[in-house]
This record gives sequence, C-alpha cells and structure tokens, in this order.
Amino acid sequence: MQYVYSFGSGNADGKAEMKNLLGGKGANLAEMNHLGIPVPPGFTITTDVCTYYYKNDLVFPENLKNQIEDSLKSTEAIMNSSFGDKKNPLLLSVRSGARKSMPGMMETVLNVGLTNNTIPGLITKTGNPRFVYDAYRRLITMYADVVMEKAAGIEPLEGQGIRQKLEQILDLFKKENGLKNDTDLSGDQLQKIAEEYKKEIKNTLGSNFPDDPSVQLWGGIEAVFKSWNGARAISYRKIENIPDEWGTAVNVQAMVFGNMGENSATGVAFTRNPATGENKFYGEWLANAQGEDVVAGLRTPNPLNEATKTSDTEHLPSLELSMPELYSKLAKIRINLENHYKDMQDIEFTIQEGRLWMLQTRVGKRNGVAAIKMAVDMATHGMINKKTALMRVQPEQLDELLHPMLDPESESKATFLAKGLPAGPGGATGRLVFNADDAETWHNRGEKVILLREETSPEDVHGMHAAVAILTAKGGMTSHAALVARGWGKCCIVGCGSLHINLDKKEVNIGNAVLKEGDWITMNGTLGKIYQGQLDLIPSNPENHEEYKQLMTWADEVRKLKIRTNAETPNDAKQAIQFGAQGIGLCRTEHMFFDEDRILAIRKMILANNVQDRRSAVMELLPYQKQDFMGILKAMEGLPVTIRLLDPPLHEFITLTNEQIEELADHVNLEKSAVEKRINGLHELNPMLGHRGCRLGIAYPEITEMQARAILEAAAELTRTGTVVLPEIMIPLVGTVTEFVDQERIVRATAKDVYEETGIEFDYLVGTMIELPRACLTADEIAEQADFFSFGTNDLTQTTYGFSRDDIGSFLPDYLDRRILTHDPFQSLDINGVGKLVTMAVQSGRGINSKLKIGICGEHGGDPASINFCMENGLDYVSCSPFRVPIARLAAAQATLDL
Amino acid sequence: MQYVYSFGSGNADGKAEMKNLLGGKGANLAEMNHLGIPVPPGFTITTDVCTYYYKNDLVFPENLKNQIEDSLKSTEAIMNSSFGDKKNPLLLSVRSGARKSMPGMMETVLNVGLTNNTIPGLITKTGNPRFVYDAYRRLITMYADVVMEKAAGIEPLEGQGIRQKLEQILDLFKKENGLKNDTDLSGDQLQKIAEEYKKEIKNTLGSNFPDDPSVQLWGGIEAVFKSWNGARAISYRKIENIPDEWGTAVNVQAMVFGNMGENSATGVAFTRNPATGENKFYGEWLANAQGEDVVAGLRTPNPLNEATKTSDTEHLPSLELSMPELYSKLAKIRINLENHYKDMQDIEFTIQEGRLWMLQTRVGKRNGVAAIKMAVDMATHGMINKKTALMRVQPEQLDELLHPMLDPESESKATFLAKGLPAGPGGATGRLVFNADDAETWHNRGEKVILLREETSPEDVHGMHAAVAILTAKGGMTSHAALVARGWGKCCIVGCGSLHINLDKKEVNIGNAVLKEGDWITMNGTLGKIYQGQLDLIPSNPENHEEYKQLMTWADEVRKLKIRTNAETPNDAKQAIQFGAQGIGLCRTEHMFFDEDRILAIRKMILANNVQDRRSAVMELLPYQKQDFMGILKAMEGLPVTIRLLDPPLHEFITLTNEQIEELADHVNLEKSAVEKRINGLHELNPMLGHRGCRLGIAYPEITEMQARAILEAAAELTRTGTVVLPEIMIPLVGTVTEFVDQERIVRATAKDVYEETGIEFDYLVGTMIELPRACLTADEIAEQADFFSFGTNDLTQTTYGFSRDDIGSFLPDYLDRRILTHDPFQSLDINGVGKLVTMAVQSGRGINSKLKIGICGEHGGDPASINFCMENGLDYVSCSPFRVPIARLAAAQATLDL
Repeated sequence: MQYVYSFGSGNADGKAEMKNLLGGKGANLAEMNHLGIPVPPGFTITTDVCTYYYKNDLVFPENLKNQIEDSLKSTEAIMNSSFGDKKNPLLLSVRSGARKSMPGMMETVLNVGLTNNTIPGLITKTGNPRFVYDAYRRLITMYADVVMEKAAGIEPLEGQGIRQKLEQILDLFKKENGLKNDTDLSGDQLQKIAEEYKKEIKNTLGSNFPDDPSVQLWGGIEAVFKSWNGARAISYRKIENIPDEWGTAVNVQAMVFGNMGENSATGVAFTRNPATGENKFYGEWLANAQGEDVVAGLRTPNPLNEATKTSDTEHLPSLELSMPELYSKLAKIRINLENHYKDMQDIEFTIQEGRLWMLQTRVGKRNGVAAIKMAVDMATHGMINKKTALMRVQPEQLDELLHPMLDPESESKATFLAKGLPAGPGGATGRLVFNADDAETWHNRGEKVILLREETSPEDVHGMHAAVAILTAKGGMTSHAALVARGWGKCCIVGCGSLHINLDKKEVNIGNAVLKEGDWITMNGTLGKIYQGQLDLIPSNPENHEEYKQLMTWADEVRKLKIRTNAETPNDAKQAIQFGAQGIGLCRTEHMFFDEDRILAIRKMILANNVQDRRSAVMELLPYQKQDFMGILKAMEGLPVTIRLLDPPLHEFITLTNEQIEELADHVNLEKSAVEKRINGLHELNPMLGHRGCRLGIAYPEITEMQARAILEAAAELTRTGTVVLPEIMIPLVGTVTEFVDQERIVRATAKDVYEETGIEFDYLVGTMIELPRACLTADEIAEQADFFSFGTNDLTQTTYGFSRDDIGSFLPDYLDRRILTHDPFQSLDINGVGKLVTMAVQSGRGINSKLKIGICGEHGGDPASINFCMENGLDYVSCSPFRVPIARLAAAQATLDL
Repeated sequence: MQYVYSFGSGNADGKAEMKNLLGGKGANLAEMNHLGIPVPPGFTITTDVCTYYYKNDLVFPENLKNQIEDSLKSTEAIMNSSFGDKKNPLLLSVRSGARKSMPGMMETVLNVGLTNNTIPGLITKTGNPRFVYDAYRRLITMYADVVMEKAAGIEPLEGQGIRQKLEQILDLFKKENGLKNDTDLSGDQLQKIAEEYKKEIKNTLGSNFPDDPSVQLWGGIEAVFKSWNGARAISYRKIENIPDEWGTAVNVQAMVFGNMGENSATGVAFTRNPATGENKFYGEWLANAQGEDVVAGLRTPNPLNEATKTSDTEHLPSLELSMPELYSKLAKIRINLENHYKDMQDIEFTIQEGRLWMLQTRVGKRNGVAAIKMAVDMATHGMINKKTALMRVQPEQLDELLHPMLDPESESKATFLAKGLPAGPGGATGRLVFNADDAETWHNRGEKVILLREETSPEDVHGMHAAVAILTAKGGMTSHAALVARGWGKCCIVGCGSLHINLDKKEVNIGNAVLKEGDWITMNGTLGKIYQGQLDLIPSNPENHEEYKQLMTWADEVRKLKIRTNAETPNDAKQAIQFGAQGIGLCRTEHMFFDEDRILAIRKMILANNVQDRRSAVMELLPYQKQDFMGILKAMEGLPVTIRLLDPPLHEFITLTNEQIEELADHVNLEKSAVEKRINGLHELNPMLGHRGCRLGIAYPEITEMQARAILEAAAELTRTGTVVLPEIMIPLVGTVTEFVDQERIVRATAKDVYEETGIEFDYLVGTMIELPRACLTADEIAEQADFFSFGTNDLTQTTYGFSRDDIGSFLPDYLDRRILTHDPFQSLDINGVGKLVTMAVQSGRGINSKLKIGICGEHGGDPASINFCMENGLDYVSCSPFRVPIARLAAAQATLDL
C-alpha cells in the first residue's frame, strides 16, 4: 500500500483528482509539478494513514517509516542537501491538508531539522546567523506548542500555554535591552533567547526540546495527525458537516525562505481581481520577508504589478518592476494555472535568492460582483461553458448587486454597537427615530431616517416605508418587520436584544452607547451589524451590470421552476416583474385594510351584533378592495396572481388606545364598555393557533364573499377592457377538506353571480395554502377539491416545530450556537422534518389530482437550498419577495443543473 | 328479483339476518313470525327498491306493482278482510324501516284504506262510528301533510303547513262547541271536521284528498321512500355517518287497534328493567288506547305487572291482573324473544278485542348501570359469553358508576340556565363563589361550593380542590380547569360563553338570570348543562357494585394494552391504583412548584443574573422535589412511573400583582423596575409555541439536573429500603434528536453521580414525549437514542391542526354544529390526521429500536375510539386521568376483541 506520494522537479506520484487521498493542498502540489511549475519538493502522507492511525490506537502503519525515508531521499536529491546534515542541512515544513480546506484548524511546524548539529552548517551556507537563529527560535516555539505541550498531556488555561510563556521571555528580553521590534534582535541575542526557551520548556513541560532532526520530523507528523481530532477541528467539522472519517493528509516539504536577503521575497496573489472580477493579475508581495509577514500587517505589502496600482499604492514598488524576470515567470504560471484549473486561483509564492517557488494554489474566494464577472467572462471566452458559469455564482451573492452595500473600508474602521438578526440585506445609514409618525415627518422634510421599534405592527407600515432602514429589538427572521422590509428590499435588522429603548425620552441604550433621536447610525443588514455614525455606502445598480444580465438570461434558459413574487401593491408587482417574476405567488390582503377609511369599516364589522350589520360593514370595503385588485391584476397582466383571503386574527385590526376606543364607541353608537368587552373577547392566548385564516371566513362568510366579489368583479372589468387576468383565489390555513369546501362554495357561488351580472367569463382558480401539518397529512382529500396548493412554509415550520416565529428569539440564537439546530428553519427549509410533510403532500395531492398546480410562498421561496428541494419535489413554482427573485432564478437554474 | 317480502300467521319470506335488505323493523317482524309470535300480517318493500327509485329518476321497478298486489292478497287472506272492500275493509299502516334506526326522521301513514266507500262497512263491522271517523280524520291529516303537501311542491314556513291549518280547524271547532279534549268529540262532529279538512286541502294544496284506497297506498309508499331524502333524514345521516346509499325499506301492515273498547289495549315494554338491569318484565300499558297515547302523556299509563309497581303506581291496574291470560301470553313472548335475541328487547304490543299483536321488537336502550348488570347477569347464566358481555357495555357508561349523577327526575323539572363544554362528568350541586380563596374559606366552614372563574390558572388550584365543581366561561376540553378537574374526577363545565362575570360585584349573568355569591346551582358535567337551584344527586359506589367488578375482571383477562394513569400526587396515584392503573404514564412536575416556599425559589431562579445564582436558586428546590418523587414512587411500588421534566413557559411562575412585584423585588434585592423588565421579557405572543418544554432545560440545564437528581436520589433511597422503583424520565417537547441528546446526557451524567455517591444501582429509562409533528417525522432518529416514546396527543393535536386549546372556544362549537368537524379532536383522536403522524412515528421508531416502549398520555388515553386506535397501532399502554382508568380498561378489552 502506498502511503507516501512524492513530488518535486516536475514529477509527482499524485495529481489534482486525488484530493480525497492527498488532501487539497497535496493534490494541487502534485498537479503543479505536472504543469511544470516550480514547487519545493517533498511528499504527502495520505489521509489513509490518518484513518489507520485513529483506527489502530494511534499507531502508524508498519511500512510508513520506510516509505517516508525513501521519499525524503528524493527530496534531498532534488534540493541537493541532506536532512540533518552537518554541512548542508535540509529544512522541512510539516503541514496539514484535508480534503476540504479547514483554514487554521490544524497544526503546522516549520523549520524542522534545525539542531545544534545543523545550525553551524546552515550559518556557513547562508552567511546569516541572525536568519538561522530566528528560524531556530520559531521552530522551538512551534514545536513546544504543537508537539510537546500536547504530548505532555497538559491542557493550560486560555493564554497560559507554553507559547505565551516563550513569548513573555522574548518580550522581557526586548524590554530589558530597549528593543522594540523582533527585527531589532541580533543573531547572538536570538541565540540566547533560544537557550532560555529550551530551559523554560524543560521546566514547564518536563522534557528537553529534541535535538534530533528525525524526532522533530516524526513529532511534527504525529502532531498534525493528532490535530485532526483537536477541539477546534472537531467543532469546525461539525459546523461544516465534514465527516470525521475523512482524516487529513500531511505535507512534508523542503523549506524555502523569502527572507534570505533582498533577492528573496514572498507574496500572495489572485489570478483575477477577487473584488471586481477584472481579468488582471492581482496580488501583494514583500521583499526579504516570510509568508506570515504579508498577512500580519506589520509591514505594508507592495502591489504585484503596475496595472493594479491605486492612488494609495502608486508610490510602492511593484514586483513587475523590481524583479521583472521573476514577475514574468509568475505571470506565465498565472496563465498556466487558470488555463488548467479554469477558475480564478489564489496562490502563494516565495522567491529564495532569485529563485521562484510556488507554495500553494487553490480556487480563490471572491465577492458577488467578482463572481458574476469572472463566470460570465470565462464563459464568454470559452474557458468554461454556460452551465459551469451558472454554478460559479452563489445565488446569495447577487444580493450585493441588488442592494446598496456598506463600503468595506468604511465598515472596517467603524464603531461597532450591536448585532441582531440580518432580516433585510444591504447597507443603510440614517438618523434614529422612535416611531412611525416621526419617521414620516422627518422623511417628508428630507431626512434619511432609520426607524427603531421594540417590534413593528401593521400600524407602523407608513413609517417603515418612510425609513431607509428598520431596526427592532424583538422578533425573528419572519417577524412583521422582517417580512415587510424584505418585500421592499429594505435594509432591516430584527431581534437585536441588546437594544433597550426608552420611548418617553426617545433614547436607546445600545451596548455602552446611549443614542438619542436624530443620532446617525449605520446598519449592515446582510450581517446584522449596527455601527455608530454615518458610513459610506456602495450603491446598487444591477440593470447597468451587463454580466449580471447575461448570467440571468442563461439562468432563465436553464431553469424549469417558475419564479413568482410575494407582492401586495401594483408598485411591488412592477418592481418584481423588473426582477423577472413570472406571477404573484402570494398577495396578502390584510394590509389593505389599514388605511384610515377602511379600518373603520373592519372595526364596525367586528363590533356588529347581527349578520345584517356585519354584512353592511363588510360591504363598505368592496369598492376599495376592488380597486386594489384592479391595480394588481393590471400590473401583472397575463401573469397568474394568487390572492390570499383574509388571514390574521381580528384583534390585529382593533388594537386601540383608550381614546381611540372612546372615539370608536361614539362612532358606532355603542357604550365604551361594550366596545371594550368585544375587544377583550377577541384576546387570544396563542393567536397564531387561534381564530384566523379560513376560520374567519367560516365564522364570517360575508368577508369571504366580499373579497371574492372584489377579485372577480375586478377580473371581469379588466377582461372587458381586453386585459388578460389569471386570478387564483387562495383559502388560507385549511386543516380539513371540509373547511376548504365551505369556503370554495362561497367563492364559486360568487363567481356564478358575477358571471351572470356582468355577462363576462374568465378563468380563475380556487386553491389553498398548505400551512398546517394536517393539511399535508390529508392532502389527497384536499387535492380532490382544490385547483392548487401553495405551501406556506412559514406557518408550516411553526407548527411542525412548535416554534412561534415571534417568540423564537429567546432560544434560537442559543440553539444555533450550540448546534442543536444547524440552521434557522425559518430561513432555510427543514428538509428532514417540514420537508417530509411537503413531499408527502405533493405526492398524495398529485396522486389524486395530476393537474394540481403546486408552489411555495413562504420565505423559503427565496432560499437556494430550499429552492433545490422544491425542484426535486416537482413543484411548479416558488414565490419570494421581489428582491429575492433574481436569487431564486439563479438558484432554480442551479437546481436544474444539479438534478 | 324479489322486491316484496311477506309475513304473517307464522310464515315470513324474510328473517332477522336480512336487516340490510328489509331494514331493522321489517327483519324483526319477519323473525317474530318464525318464532310463532303473533304479528299483524303485511309485507316489507326492500331497501333495493329505494335505491332503484333514486337511481332511476324516481321511478319504481316494473314488477313491484304485481309483487305488492300478491302480498296484499296474502295479508287479506290472513286478516279475512279486503283492502277497499265495502263490507269488510282492511286498513293498512305504511311505515319506514332503515337498516339502522332513524327515529322520527322519516314518514308514516296510518289507517290507509278509509274512503267514502269503506267507512260505512267499517262502522257496521265495529259498531263504532266515532272510532271510524277519528281514524279517518287522522288519515286525512297525515296524508295531507306527508304525501300531498310535498307532492304539490309547497315548502311552507315553519308552523304554517297544512298540518297546522287542519289542527287550527279542529281547535276552532272545539272552541265553538265548548269542547276541551279530542275525546269529547262525537262521531258526527268528527265526520263534519273531516269534510272541512278536505275542503281546506282542496283550497290550500289545489287537489282533492284521494278517495281511492290504492291511490292512498301508493301515495303512502312513495312518500316514505321520498322521506329518505328529506332534510331531517339527510342531516341525521350526516351526524350518524349513515351512508346515503343504504336507503330505507317500507313496511305495509294490517292495522290493529287498541282503542276498540275495554277489551282492547296497547303498551310498550322492556324484557328487563332498562334503568336498573333487573331481570323483571317492565312496561306500561293503557286500556282502550292507541300506541301514541302511551307516549303522549295525556293519560297516565299503568304498570305492566305487580312486581314492578312502585309507591307511585301501586294504586293503578296492572295488565297482569286486568287481562291475566293475555299477560301470560305476553310474558311467554318476552322469554321467547330474550332467549332468541339474547339481549334485552324493547317491544310494542296492541290488544285488539282480546287478541294480542306484537308490533315491534328491537334491542332496548339502557343506561350504564343496567347495561353492566344485564351483561354480567346474562353471561353468568350462560345466555351470552364473556366476550359478548364485554361488548355490551359502552365504556363511557361506566362514568355513571364512577361519579355521582344528577337524579333524572329532578333534572327534568329543573330551571335550565346555560350549556358549556362537558369537561368533567357527573353531577354536582353547590353555592357559587367567585375566587379560589373564597372557595377555600367557604369549604372550610362546611359549605359545598362551585368555583366560577373566567378561566383557571395554577394559582386557583387550592380553590378548585375545595370546590365540589368548577365552572369557567372560557377554555376548551383540555384547558387547565378541564385537566385538573378530570384528574380529580370532579364535575366541571368549561367554555360556557353565556356567562358574564362581574368580579367586583361577585355576580354573574347566565342567560336571563343574575346569580350572586352563595346562590345554589347544579351542574350536569356529563352533558355540560347548568341549572338553577339545588337538585338531587344519585351517589356513585363502584366498589360495592358486584357486576361492575366482575365485568372489569373479565376486561382485564382479555385486554392486551396496559392502562396507566396521569397523576402527580401520592393520593392521585393511590386512587388510580384502586381504579386498576398499572403505572403512571404522566407525572407532571410543574404544579409541584406552586407551593409558597417553592415558588419563591423558582422566581429567584428566573431573576438570577448569572449561572451561579440561578443554580443555587434551583438547588433550593431539590429537597422538596425529592420528597415529591419519594411519595409517588413509593405509592406506585413496583409499577413504572413516567415523570415529565418541567414543561410550561417560565412566565407562568411569575404572573404577579404590582404589590407582589414590590415584595419580590425587596426579597431578591433588586430594583422593582428590574423585576418588571424581566417579567416583561418573558412575555410571549404565542407561549404554546414558545420557550417551554425541553427548550427550558436546554437554556437552564440546572433545572434538568435538579429534577433528574431529585428523581434519582429518591429512587436510590427507596431502593436501599427495599422498595422496587421503575422511574422513567421524560424529556418534553422534543422536536429534534439533538434536543433529546442534550437533555439525556444531563440525566445520564446525574445518574452516574448518584450511583457513585450512594453506591446503589437501579433501573431507569430516559425517553421523550412525542408531541410535535417534527418529532413524529424524525421518530427514527429520536428512537435511536430514547428508551421510550409517550405521545402527548394534546399538544400534537394543537400543532397538527394549528388549534390552540385555549382559544378554540371561539370557533369549535360552530365547527361541530356545521359538521366542519365531526368531533372535537382534543376529545377523540383525529385518526385521519394526527393518527397518521402517530402511526408513522410508531413504525419508524420501532423500525430502528424494536425495544422502544410506546404509550400515549394525552387526554385521548381515556377515549374509547382513541384507545382502539392505540391498540391497532401496537402501543404498549395508554395513560389517562384516574377516573377514566376503568373506562380505558373496558375500551382496551373491546379493542382486543375487535381486532
């Protein structure tokens, strides 16, 4: 069995496809050899060894030692030096490398091979004692920390480990000697420090730092394998769902040094610009430095080339001009790698005494704008095909184009105040106001305001509309504020528990800050972060973004799932059509009742003592509702519009102050106490499970009749003027087929009347929202009667989990932190639980009624993972808020490609 | 095809087994002929004819006419008279008779065959013109109402039909002639009235009353078939789940008359006493009367025999002494029928001029006490076997023995006030009090009180205990009041919407009455009825009831399902064992915290700012909880006890008045505002879906640890003293296996500690309550970890339907009335929806873990239909409140026999 795969000098036992065996790093090191790219030689110990090691009580396979010795010989041969050799010693690095990158989660030991025996030789060879003792000091520190402390079975408290103790020695030495930086230390001084280190190690850990290169190497290898089961690695694997069985590989490589003088250097680069996607070689480098120096930020790194210089960096030396030949070699490698991997690469290189070495190549991370540009560019130039291009962009990354974003530069320097749930993406900056009326007033006088509320209710909607962003102390990702804000594509953070609002003073405590009305704050709605003051924003402009438009066209060519939107005004509808919506999947009707003239009719209805009065109150709303539906149906001409009948419990319409109660009592000619009694009678302990949905329409059939008539009369009138309408009337919260039949009967009878009265016929559907477990369990019965199902997965998630969206804030964050839940089930569909109900309902519904139209209109309609699930389950469409329509279009295309 | 089945004179085409074809009545008439019992001859037109009639546009099969004519000839021959004959006319009755009795839902026409042509002959034959014209008047009324009005297509308003118009004529005539009763009318007068009737019919319905016997007969037959699809019959079938396709049969029979002089009589009887079950012939009769006179109550009927005379009836003549020969014939028929049918029969008889005719026999209705006695008596005497005896008693009928009941006599005369949901069965009478403290005070001074509340909360428990019954305006069958009351077997009515309570005045409006503190009311908790004043009760005494004990022994021999109880105190536990419980299936722990000394610790825990303080507050409860569990485990020695960890949201423990808040703030040394803030922070919009169940134990692991320790230390201590304990620790409201694992780990770690500390080992289980749809959907994952499942079908019903138990009152009654639901799903398991989840969970749970113990502890555990479902699904046990244990035992036996 081959446990060790050598590489170097253009040869390699492995290749890129062997990631499972060699880990990502090892496979790519092998592959670069095949591509003729210079890589420090070495070998990869396979993940099989890791698995063997854990299966066999931490013992390595028998012939591993021989194989390593053989490989080491090849490395020595290529490097023309020997490991442990007195005169010409080879130094090695020992690094982890798992199948999937686990950055920083496992251990590394560098400079392995430095001993009292080899140090003099290396000094002679390099002529640089300072370099050698610095490397020695680093080796001791790493080795003590990574290998020896763990081997001694010591688990120090946070910040009190051997590494910190050694650093204290260093700090003390510098202080005593009046030195500021590590670079101020001479070789002699570093030698003394190394000796002190070794004493401290003996004292603290009870054993000597090993002076045997072979012991160091095996110690390093074993430490890396052991770190696969370190606490950090385990918890990272849990989060990323990486199986424990995979194991890590270990890469042992000849050390190369970028800090061996002015003809040495080190750098990191991307084959294209990861922030813009521009096809320019982009990176940073430092002369006479080690890799970590570029990242650490102690020295300002230089731009790689002239073309990518900015006003900030134009005075700095580029590698292109400083080392033109090496740069040109690097640039060729860049082309070589991109042509080979057909994707933007993130690379690390070191130049040792004028010789270029590549240390790493991997697919580079990129932001959304860059992802789109690169994918479309590469596809346009034939480097990849369209399908690959579509798979290269994460749907969520489109958000960056659809919303203004915080300028990262500005954000990095800002004063952080608090974190909440990221309910509406994008960035926003504005002045704090504490109620909806103030928001409107300030907005009207030209101010940008952020509306801050404990939580919002339908009565805050005008203020929410006036505000540039919404911030609440309570509520979850599907609370009222979150839903409304996402519908408008507005920046919104909810459930920010560290806000303590004093409404009387118009003041809020956030963390340690106290902010007053009019104070500026800035919100990153994508991350849920709140900052003090006014930060810079980067505007959104998708319609001018050619690559975006191109990608979306490709997506539409591929996808099979239709994308609708959740919208309840003609403006929302138009916006959604611009974003590519193919219909309305959920038009809620309850918000239409909150206008001043309408709410009174609703309240009269609620207070009516008999059917006649109730009926006449409800019918006052008919002309308004008809206008509402005319507007929406017209805006969506030729596209289907699913309109949900009244859903929320009635008490939402009659939450009144004492004064308002008096006024209303006057108006309807009732005793105040009678009004109060009725309001109290509507109080429910668990309104979410109370008298709402179709239960309202069953108790008050005149509401259903009025709404059906408004929709159908609007449809008739538009049909008469030649507008094609496709209304789909949706009965909410059906739990038994008898409920559906009761309500359907009213709708169909009303349609018959409208047909007869107007003489105009048009198509319409009657269907139901499937949002209760029982509806899923009896979907066959319901499907026999219904034209369509629309899964209301918000409510379905609530009842399946028994989680109230409004109250989940008290435990959900903790659940996520502790991995009791891997994700918020209101954001991404719980496929294992809720998904089973959906699958069951689709199968049994279609089993009875093969023509059943099926969609989803919960918030999950805009979530890529959930869209994938919908596609697999054969749904006809998903419906989401307008600003998520593009995301859904791309996700639907990817789901099709994934099948 | 045979459409008509004749019977008479000891011969019959049909038999008892042909109920589907002949209907119940027709089949039994045929059967009585086979038994040699005298029955007026006639024939039955089959239910097939009904089906044919409706399938063929209301046309009868071709050869029906011939078959009827043939059968009529046999009847004429037996009766020695002819239908329509001038001298010796035969009169017929036309009655419905469905497969399943539908009393009063279909039509009847009597005296068919009376015409101007036949009347003189009948007068001559009987010598009784009054009798003949009275019969004629009755025929006209019935025929006009049943046949002619419907045929004319007239749908009169309620109370304005032809029947009422004819009755008005009669009333006017009596008034004008100064007569009081119908019996005061002479033959001449009745003849005049008949003529007026016919004129009115011609005027109102536009056609003449038919003077042709054949037209009358066919009109009657068709009217009966038509009445199968009358509004009353349809709605009755809906309620009773009788299929429309069954159809009715029609029975045509020779008329016999009990009102032809003093040697004629009529009566109804039961072969045993239907109220006590005593094996005595029991019935009522009247000389010279028609069947309806016995029932109508205008004349007091006489007792059938001497043995069943009471002080009220000892002065009245018995049939036994008045007509000893006929009585002896009847008594022989009684024995004949019982021996044949092997069940108590309800019979009707008529004696015409000294000749006995049996008109009907059917299985008699009986109350619970009688049902038990008869079943056991019959089985003891070998008339039926034990299995049949077990099937003869409806489990719900046991309630009569387990609770005191209202005296029916007293109830029938009482002033009815209002109706609510029947939450706790039995009767109770007491004086009204308006709060728990008053209930206790009055109780302590020896008063019987009924506690009236808007709704109850755990803080009312002491008052509920002191009261003889509980009455609430709000809440459903599983509200707090209902659960607590049923647990104690206490009479309780909830959700009585017509109560309007004025707490300040200690006054309540019920319907039109205003009652004050101290006023007497009486409640029928079995029916949900409330009466004014103090009514008589019949005490319960099951332990002295030998037949009850015998029946339960037989039930226990047969049943496979174990029966446990829901109990949370040693007293409840002992009571339940007496009722036959085999363990505790649900011991709730939350009520244990409401004692004054304990609630403070809970509140301190809630207000704690850090883990240490919280932990120390919780641990104050340990000794109390340990005592609780010692008591219960000891009471249930050797039987399993399932203890559920804390379930309700914390705010239930900290609902405080302003004063109490101040007091508490003082006590815990906090600002009042801080206490208020914490209380407000616990407020939830939908607490049922909020921070409760295992979500509490996950947020506050010290609660789980304390409770586990209390249980396990109690178990250890009892084990040490030789008591066998079987604690089963139940994690509530688990939705994902990760929640279960988190809590299970705490319990098992605590058990390890307790084992080590005490050196005592004992068995215990850790399982979970399956009460969320998601738990059912992922039952395989959970079953891999859990020792047992206990279905909490109350909560499972809530989330599956999306019905809050607390709020369902606003629409459930309407849903039941309108048949949107056929039953309250909180009372009887919704097999079609919730049941599917249960089946799924059982199958996938057992699929993974074949040793999984499975039970049900929701209120459905005491419902016979639900128990049947549990049996079919292979559950190990059901658990119900102590007073339902006997019901569950019998239901479980029946479920086994049913399989």
